Amino acid sequence: MGPGPSDVHPRVLAACARPTVGHLDPSFVALMDDVQDLLRYAFKTKNTLTMPVSAPGSAGMETCLVNLVEPGDTVVVAKNGVFGGRMAAIVERIGGRVVLVEDAWGEPVNPQKVEDALKANPGAKAVAFVHAETSTGARSDAKTLAEIAHRHDALAIVDTVTSLGGIELDVDGWALDAVYSGSQKCLSAPPGLSPITLSDRAVDVVKSRKTPVVSWFLDLTLVMGYWGSGAKRSYHHTAPVNAIYGLHEALVMLAEEGLEASWARHRRYHEQLAAGLEALGLSYVVDAEYRLPQLNAVRFPEGVDDAATRRALLDRFGLEIGGGLGDLAGKVWRIGLMGAAATEKNVALALAAIGAVL
Amino acid sequence: MGPGPSDVHPRVLAACARPTVGHLDPSFVALMDDVQDLLRYAFKTKNTLTMPVSAPGSAGMETCLVNLVEPGDTVVVAKNGVFGGRMAAIVERIGGRVVLVEDAWGEPVNPQKVEDALKANPGAKAVAFVHAETSTGARSDAKTLAEIAHRHDALAIVDTVTSLGGIELDVDGWALDAVYSGSQKCLSAPPGLSPITLSDRAVDVVKSRKTPVVSWFLDLTLVMGYWGSGAKRSYHHTAPVNAIYGLHEALVMLAEEGLEASWARHRRYHEQLAAGLEALGLSYVVDAEYRLPQLNAVRFPEGVDDAATRRALLDRFGLEIGGGLGDLAGKVWRIGLMGAAATEKNVALALAAIGAVL
Repeated sequence: MGPGPSDVHPRVLAACARPTVGHLDPSFVALMDDVQDLLRYAFKTKNTLTMPVSAPGSAGMETCLVNLVEPGDTVVVAKNGVFGGRMAAIVERIGGRVVLVEDAWGEPVNPQKVEDALKANPGAKAVAFVHAETSTGARSDAKTLAEIAHRHDALAIVDTVTSLGGIELDVDGWALDAVYSGSQKCLSAPPGLSPITLSDRAVDVVKSRKTPVVSWFLDLTLVMGYWGSGAKRSYHHTAPVNAIYGLHEALVMLAEEGLEASWARHRRYHEQLAAGLEALGLSYVVDAEYRLPQLNAVRFPEGVDDAATRRALLDRFGLEIGGGLGDLAGKVWRIGLMGAAATEKNVALALAAIGAVL
Repeated sequence: MGPGPSDVHPRVLAACARPTVGHLDPSFVALMDDVQDLLRYAFKTKNTLTMPVSAPGSAGMETCLVNLVEPGDTVVVAKNGVFGGRMAAIVERIGGRVVLVEDAWGEPVNPQKVEDALKANPGAKAVAFVHAETSTGARSDAKTLAEIAHRHDALAIVDTVTSLGGIELDVDGWALDAVYSGSQKCLSAPPGLSPITLSDRAVDVVKSRKTPVVSWFLDLTLVMGYWGSGAKRSYHHTAPVNAIYGLHEALVMLAEEGLEASWARHRRYHEQLAAGLEALGLSYVVDAEYRLPQLNAVRFPEGVDDAATRRALLDRFGLEIGGGLGDLAGKVWRIGLMGAAATEKNVALALAAIGAVL
């Protein structure tokens, strides 16, 4: 019950142990088609370019940014936690110009500030923001932020690492252009893959670049030869076959439950958990309106030894919860309620265990 | 028995299905120490910076190049197959100047040409070459090439994706500076990880860069915070926990067998396979002296339908072999004899099946 990786269901673990076949084996190529269809379901999109990047979520972030941003491009980056800051760092490394829009840790991204930044920087190529900030537990309004971006003819690049499968996300309905996620949060597959989806508009931007993508490994014009079309798949790099077995099984389980039912389950057990944590004297970092059900960042009482308490939870109850990151390091705990781990049993265990160690 | 991924042993598959724990869990951090020690054994090195990159071999290649090469640096790249060409493409994308030294597909890298290129390009920062070319099955003399690089004060950057665990490789004895490999060849773990090792000299070059590494995800100065020292590991990206369980088990199996015994086993079954393939009228692309035991590239008889024959091997015998890449596409088959798949049984099956379909 940390901030991810979440607990992986035995069905998904068993899938990871299926015999490894070649990355161009006909049976694997058919599975790739399935994975892409299941990801389209999870993201709520018809985007052709929907696939898992063969590396963790940070590489999905880098994939979206290095393919869409060229040296000299301006990108408005919203920062209200660790991961907005990471987006800004990547844009700077590839020679982009960052216009940083900052909000306090625990606050959602303020749409007005983004609008002001776009007005002050005409011609900005993209707005990049985090839908569900894993470092604070705050949900931002992705639909509104994308509308603002489009009003200024900018692309919306969106981090959904912690939101996919856990809260409402509607890539096509909200017209998001480039979206990346992670396998190890509300999908509850092992870490190591980063599902991404790009709108046709974003794909056109990639195809009409003036400069080559600086990363060969993450260059979507090359990766698309392998993942782009089910008709003919040709070698780019060797896909992590067993990890994709696991992701596939996790996506099958999500489809069996139903996307909306999964969102509702996360919400239901979050409410139980929140009531219990507040009864124990722990206070949320984020206002109820913007709170993520799957990532509960709470301030612990004064005088409590952060590391020793978390270690006691692990040693005595086999329960992992996360510490704070960045501005919140040493001040908060982050309790995940993600994917297969979002259960009534886990809520009961967490409350009992935290109560006991406090 | 394709060119990789190789067949994965059930012990390794079972390890991949162990319960996922957090990437900073004390039990996982201890396993990371073990993985690093076992990789040092496999690479024959004492290098502190020895770790698996959280992505397939192509990302290991990119890690070595983007960390060591800065814009404007000259790199002598030896190309005698697909993967030397890939190295050159990466160097160019990051703004390096490539001096290409070409040898025919199937030939080893010619040391004299590398020496001549270094003489003609004083101040070259590195020589990059492939120890075991997966596209042709040729072994180059890594020890001699590294000696030449060092005589000209250049670093030796070496692709050992297909050599690690299968043929002699002595990172410290040969004084190689930056070496990357893959999990899915002679180690027989699932694809998705790229073990790398950097000499202290190479680490100094990374630490004294004038420009930031263009990739945030692959920046070793950041990754080292997580993998660099067992004493204190801090979050960079979320490691692919289950994939690392698998790599760990594969490395334990290699240590149990013994590195030299593994090399000898690959050699022994290669000789059986080669005798049988030649008896069937298939001729090797590479001269016996430079031939890789683990990657057998053979020309098939005139008139044989490449794709249909390989498909028949798969459908009738459950046997995957690889087609040709690049210059050799449609002309050769590539038969792997790698890691757990390098067995007498597999040699017998391959010869019987190929004989039957021909």
